[in-house]
Amino acid sequence: MASHDVPRAEDGTDLAERCRDAMLARDRASRSLGIEVEEVGAGFARAAFTVREDMLNGHDVCHGGFLFTLADSAFAFACNSRNAPTLALQCSITFVAPARLGERIEAVARERTLAGRTGTYDVEVCGPQGPVALFRGVSYRVTGTVLPEG
Amino acid sequence: MASHDVPRAEDGTDLAERCRDAMLARDRASRSLGIEVEEVGAGFARAAFTVREDMLNGHDVCHGGFLFTLADSAFAFACNSRNAPTLALQCSITFVAPARLGERIEAVARERTLAGRTGTYDVEVCGPQGPVALFRGVSYRVTGTVLPEG
Amino acid sequence: MASHDVPRAEDGTDLAERCRDAMLARDRASRSLGIEVEEVGAGFARAAFTVREDMLNGHDVCHGGFLFTLADSAFAFACNSRNAPTLALQCSITFVAPARLGERIEAVARERTLAGRTGTYDVEVCGPQGPVALFRGVSYRVTGTVLPEG
Amino acid sequence: MASHDVPRAEDGTDLAERCRDAMLARDRASRSLGIEVEEVGAGFARAAFTVREDMLNGHDVCHGGFLFTLADSAFAFACNSRNAPTLALQCSITFVAPARLGERIEAVARERTLAGRTGTYDVEVCGPQGPVALFRGVSYRVTGTVLPEG
Repeated sequence: MASHDVPRAEDGTDLAERCRDAMLARDRASRSLGIEVEEVGAGFARAAFTVREDMLNGHDVCHGGFLFTLADSAFAFACNSRNAPTLALQCSITFVAPARLGERIEAVARERTLAGRTGTYDVEVCGPQGPVALFRGVSYRVTGTVLPEG
Repeated sequence: MASHDVPRAEDGTDLAERCRDAMLARDRASRSLGIEVEEVGAGFARAAFTVREDMLNGHDVCHGGFLFTLADSAFAFACNSRNAPTLALQCSITFVAPARLGERIEAVARERTLAGRTGTYDVEVCGPQGPVALFRGVSYRVTGTVLPEG
Repeated sequence: MASHDVPRAEDGTDLAERCRDAMLARDRASRSLGIEVEEVGAGFARAAFTVREDMLNGHDVCHGGFLFTLADSAFAFACNSRNAPTLALQCSITFVAPARLGERIEAVARERTLAGRTGTYDVEVCGPQGPVALFRGVSYRVTGTVLPEG
Repeated sequence: MASHDVPRAEDGTDLAERCRDAMLARDRASRSLGIEVEEVGAGFARAAFTVREDMLNGHDVCHGGFLFTLADSAFAFACNSRNAPTLALQCSITFVAPARLGERIEAVARERTLAGRTGTYDVEVCGPQGPVALFRGVSYRVTGTVLPEG
């Protein structure tokens, strides 16, 4: 990214951060899992959590559903980053390695395409040893704004 | 399929129930979400939860990650129902309607194909007003048993 | 749905058949593969082809791309059956068994959900020995009509 | 990776090229669509075709099935590049822009993960104006070799 006088607003980071803050304030699900949205930008988000005891499945590794939820949250923050409210329409996830108790897991969401009302986002979910899951989401924009109007 | 004197064993329900009980005893994730595995059979499972306040996202509806988790749990109980430990390899979900606070959501997983080490399962996730999500999972069987041996 | 004198119109079959005929007349791709659209209805289509020599891959079975194409055509005829032009947004396919030279392969597409501009369709692709692939498609409706207006 | 005298063998390109040649010689499907496999390496392939009249659908753009087939071919050449025969288990595709008559369409397949018998590959399908489709495939390795033994 090139430097500017008003760097953060110009490239959409400021707007993305305000959208994130407004969403997080209402998003009890992400908070209850300890998800932290560490960085956002236009069409971009990075979120993380630490695998807790109550996230483990019968194989003693993190339930895939929580890895999905982390990825889906990153996806949501990325696709709502331009103040246009956007929903997940379809998501796919491939599980590639287990995530274990106490590991810090990070999901990085990047916009791949955006056309009309729909977009495609790739989310890479990584633990300390590398990728644990690959996620891809298709988004659908609805009417309104993410931020309160006026 | 071999014939037996005991009807429930014949269709695999008894084995499926023992696998479910062994898995659930270790599955802190499903328990922490209040997921109840109401019915299992060979290649089949029905699970449900009630949408709680801490499952709501910024749009004030159930975070898609929890709908996925419910579906993924039903998938896991269905594909581990024959005492062969089986993992989720790839999952897709399409979100079709919101699930709201207090609603009872049910996921029914059915085996569609099983060949070699891999299988395909469809999970329909429904609320009181009808489908909220359609899930499809590809499973991969590993070595060992679900039940403790000996 | 409005009532009509003609029973076939009532359930959308007549409209679906006119949409199919209009689409097939322009669809060189489906014709070049010998795809026959045997039956259509509102949100429904059944299409088939026979596996030809020029559809075989290096493993000497039908290239998965042609099974996908057959399923995708059935999907297209199902989701365009109400005279609203509709595009494939996202599709998933699981390959479950090989299709061989000379086999008749049939794809049956059924609408699962329809809300706003988007819909979900399941397509089962079967050969003489049973399922060869399971396909799921998400559709997106655009403006206009399938049939020429006026 | 073992060291070799021949540099190209060391990074797997020579082996990948021999696998490609052996597969292409048998792959009537890819040849019938004019697919050219322009470049291969370990876990990598680049393939292309030109959209022909007989690939157009009723919307007068390239039928999504042929874009899928191109991507699926690139995927197959990438995942068979190490001389271990590997099949497509599950594939997803998101269509992001139309491909038109006469356009050269290129699919680049890259291995993302490889563990045990399964792998994940991303394929980006681009035309002259940019991406037309994003494809992701899950592969499954079977026994034997791609190249004739002995």
